[in-house]
Amino acid sequence: MGFIEEVRTFLGDYVITRKEDLIPYMNDASYFTGEMPDAVLLPGSAEDVQRIMRLAYKYEVPVVVKGGGSSLTGSSILKGHGVVISMLRMNRIIDVNLNDKCVIVEPGVRLDDLERFLDGYGHFYPPDPASSRSATVGGSISTNAGGLRGVAYGVTKDWVLGLDVVLADGTLVKFGNRTLKRSAGYDMTALMIGSEGTLGVITKAYLKIWPKPERIARILAFFRTIDDAGKAISEIKEHTIPEMAEFMDKISLDSVPEAITYPDGTNYALIVDASGPVETLQRRKDQIESILKRYAIETWSTTDEKEMNRIYLARKGLYASILRLRKNENEYIVIGDIVVPVSELPSTLKEIEKARDGDGVRSALFGHIGDGNIHANIFADLSDEEAMARVNRFMMDMAMIAVKHGGSVSAEHGIGIEKRKLLIEEMRYNDNMRTLDLMKSIKHLFDPKNILNRGNIFEQDAGSDS
Amino acid sequence: MGFIEEVRTFLGDYVITRKEDLIPYMNDASYFTGEMPDAVLLPGSAEDVQRIMRLAYKYEVPVVVKGGGSSLTGSSILKGHGVVISMLRMNRIIDVNLNDKCVIVEPGVRLDDLERFLDGYGHFYPPDPASSRSATVGGSISTNAGGLRGVAYGVTKDWVLGLDVVLADGTLVKFGNRTLKRSAGYDMTALMIGSEGTLGVITKAYLKIWPKPERIARILAFFRTIDDAGKAISEIKEHTIPEMAEFMDKISLDSVPEAITYPDGTNYALIVDASGPVETLQRRKDQIESILKRYAIETWSTTDEKEMNRIYLARKGLYASILRLRKNENEYIVIGDIVVPVSELPSTLKEIEKARDGDGVRSALFGHIGDGNIHANIFADLSDEEAMARVNRFMMDMAMIAVKHGGSVSAEHGIGIEKRKLLIEEMRYNDNMRTLDLMKSIKHLFDPKNILNRGNIFEQDAGSDS
Repeated sequence: MGFIEEVRTFLGDYVITRKEDLIPYMNDASYFTGEMPDAVLLPGSAEDVQRIMRLAYKYEVPVVVKGGGSSLTGSSILKGHGVVISMLRMNRIIDVNLNDKCVIVEPGVRLDDLERFLDGYGHFYPPDPASSRSATVGGSISTNAGGLRGVAYGVTKDWVLGLDVVLADGTLVKFGNRTLKRSAGYDMTALMIGSEGTLGVITKAYLKIWPKPERIARILAFFRTIDDAGKAISEIKEHTIPEMAEFMDKISLDSVPEAITYPDGTNYALIVDASGPVETLQRRKDQIESILKRYAIETWSTTDEKEMNRIYLARKGLYASILRLRKNENEYIVIGDIVVPVSELPSTLKEIEKARDGDGVRSALFGHIGDGNIHANIFADLSDEEAMARVNRFMMDMAMIAVKHGGSVSAEHGIGIEKRKLLIEEMRYNDNMRTLDLMKSIKHLFDPKNILNRGNIFEQDAGSDS
Repeated sequence: MGFIEEVRTFLGDYVITRKEDLIPYMNDASYFTGEMPDAVLLPGSAEDVQRIMRLAYKYEVPVVVKGGGSSLTGSSILKGHGVVISMLRMNRIIDVNLNDKCVIVEPGVRLDDLERFLDGYGHFYPPDPASSRSATVGGSISTNAGGLRGVAYGVTKDWVLGLDVVLADGTLVKFGNRTLKRSAGYDMTALMIGSEGTLGVITKAYLKIWPKPERIARILAFFRTIDDAGKAISEIKEHTIPEMAEFMDKISLDSVPEAITYPDGTNYALIVDASGPVETLQRRKDQIESILKRYAIETWSTTDEKEMNRIYLARKGLYASILRLRKNENEYIVIGDIVVPVSELPSTLKEIEKARDGDGVRSALFGHIGDGNIHANIFADLSDEEAMARVNRFMMDMAMIAVKHGGSVSAEHGIGIEKRKLLIEEMRYNDNMRTLDLMKSIKHLFDPKNILNRGNIFEQDAGSDS
């Protein structure tokens, strides 16, 4: 019996091998297409995952672990032969405890489902990537996802208390637990967060939850120049923490005309939330809006749930709405995801726009400006080699602008296969190649046969450097 | 030339070798006494640290890195021959930027000095161990320190954006930077936090800072039974996040009679802070106090700065004040530092008290109850072998009670040499020994010659397992 036959003995019909059923597993939300997997495996329990990994280890079968498939960097597609492990069957919410401020879930739970569940308890789990409808807990942990609430609440790494993990050889380990703190050896939980499936398979997550803010007010501000928008957010951050602070350029705004209209002269907009107890909301909103007014053409605010939601969903849906602005069928979207210190935003944004125009690409700019995170959604015609060269040049230019401003080539999407070169350039620029070597050594330590999400973060042969 | 002579060529008088000058470096704040170091080295820059480590690596000289010396587990004392590297000369606050919500400091900065500095900007760095007067940034990162503000703000790991680190062989690496988020390979910053000096020497820290809460109200509540106190805090946590939630038993209260008086029948007290904008403070305070009233003999609250400070300092000074209750000169304090999920507090506390009485030891119980963290300050006569056996039995009993309630043997003090056995028992109980092996392998990867804080977390020979 071979690997797949052995897995079938305990997974039965949850081993998919029909070609037409495998096709959907060749892609994530990026423009990359992976190899056709030999099979897709759908474990229903940690024990299933253990048995799969024991066999994968024995037969040296590469596996890719996949959640909702919303990765934007090719991190959940196969880069060679092997199988896909889909975690979508493991989608139970196991327990919630408000005293402990902890919810225990399986990795296949979708973030929006978790949000709805916790909403019933007046609580929430802050990480909120725009893809939350399809993104899973496991996938968002694997990329250290951020999202719209990052400016106030930090990112995934700040909200994971513990993880159960199946290692490459099938051993189940427990990293952390449901306590709110611990200092008992190295923080293995943290090492897993953002490791993009390269160190182990998450089978259970202990997440910290938080009471929902009592009230929110949403402010829209429209700007003539990128400098004005950057300065406004910088000044707001000097005085207070907004609940949310998002940025959209004109292309982004034009992709959602039904949700946001803007005054003449607008080239950029900010969406800024003030939050607080009912008695304080007005003052908080006025404080933020008065700063915005100093730089903006116009501001507009609301506390109406429906209107707030319309704006929120428009911002969250930008990836899809910008996709509708494609000029032809061959165009895909390549996404830049850089981060800089907030004080560096005005100059960074100006340089990125200049590089975009210089490189001759069409790209929308938007992002989580409150924590210094800018996305560039670049229109890319994969069939046009020369155009793709320009796109890649802009991706590299944008990344290095971020690095030169003290930032990083990836804020919240991870490296996947898309940003491997960018990561190397960041390390090289900072005279920090040893850090990359250490990462590769850790990969080799956890996964000596290099079977877990091979090719993610590092090139294919990366596991064997140390 | 030997190691010390070579170091003297660039450190000059900052190499201490006179015996009487070395003695203060044999201890930390625990009851352990370490070996007399061959020398104490006081680097003034990252470059100094690099040169020291290059030589230590070449000569295979074990080093212990020491901050303020406030470790409670023997983690900054020498367990064999070697030298101490004191980081106290590297105590510059390099930069602060409110837009970026980041302060950049050298590791030798004392936490109270940082607090005073940031106070001038209306900001603070939340980790707040009781030893903040002497504890340094580097030391508190190395133990993932928590403290009094943990219930609202989390622990050190939530507030470190990046670290410059000198590795065992003298290479300077940069883990993270001053951006608020990043997803670019493994989170090496997080791996350093809580590693107790075993993986590298921190030479610079990029810390996240936060605006100070506008207003605080402090509530004292006195309870007859531990069950009442535990239930009160559990119920508060179900509804809101207090700014602080501290617990003291009667022995602790009796050590600070000038600061806190209590009504008849009191066996336990809680100190709970409500915080918020000025308009909301009263409502928040009332909400918390009304829950406390349901379980307490009496409650008392204040917003007077002086009175609040008196109570705060009494709580913060418990280690010293309890020390004054020693019955004889031979008595030291051994400190338990367990953590459990908040919902497990009532039963955990009862079992700990029962174990204490059963084991026949005298111990004060207090701690950061809001995040489930209980300290036991145990009176221990080091000269009385039989008494010490009882103390050690209680330490183990308390640790295992925590583990059985889903908790951990160390919440915020780290493992050091004191809790190495407890860590093993925690791992064994959870069928999680592989995690300990992984930690040892990481240690070996970073420090193949086992020269960095040898004997911390793991036994002496631990570095060479993998």
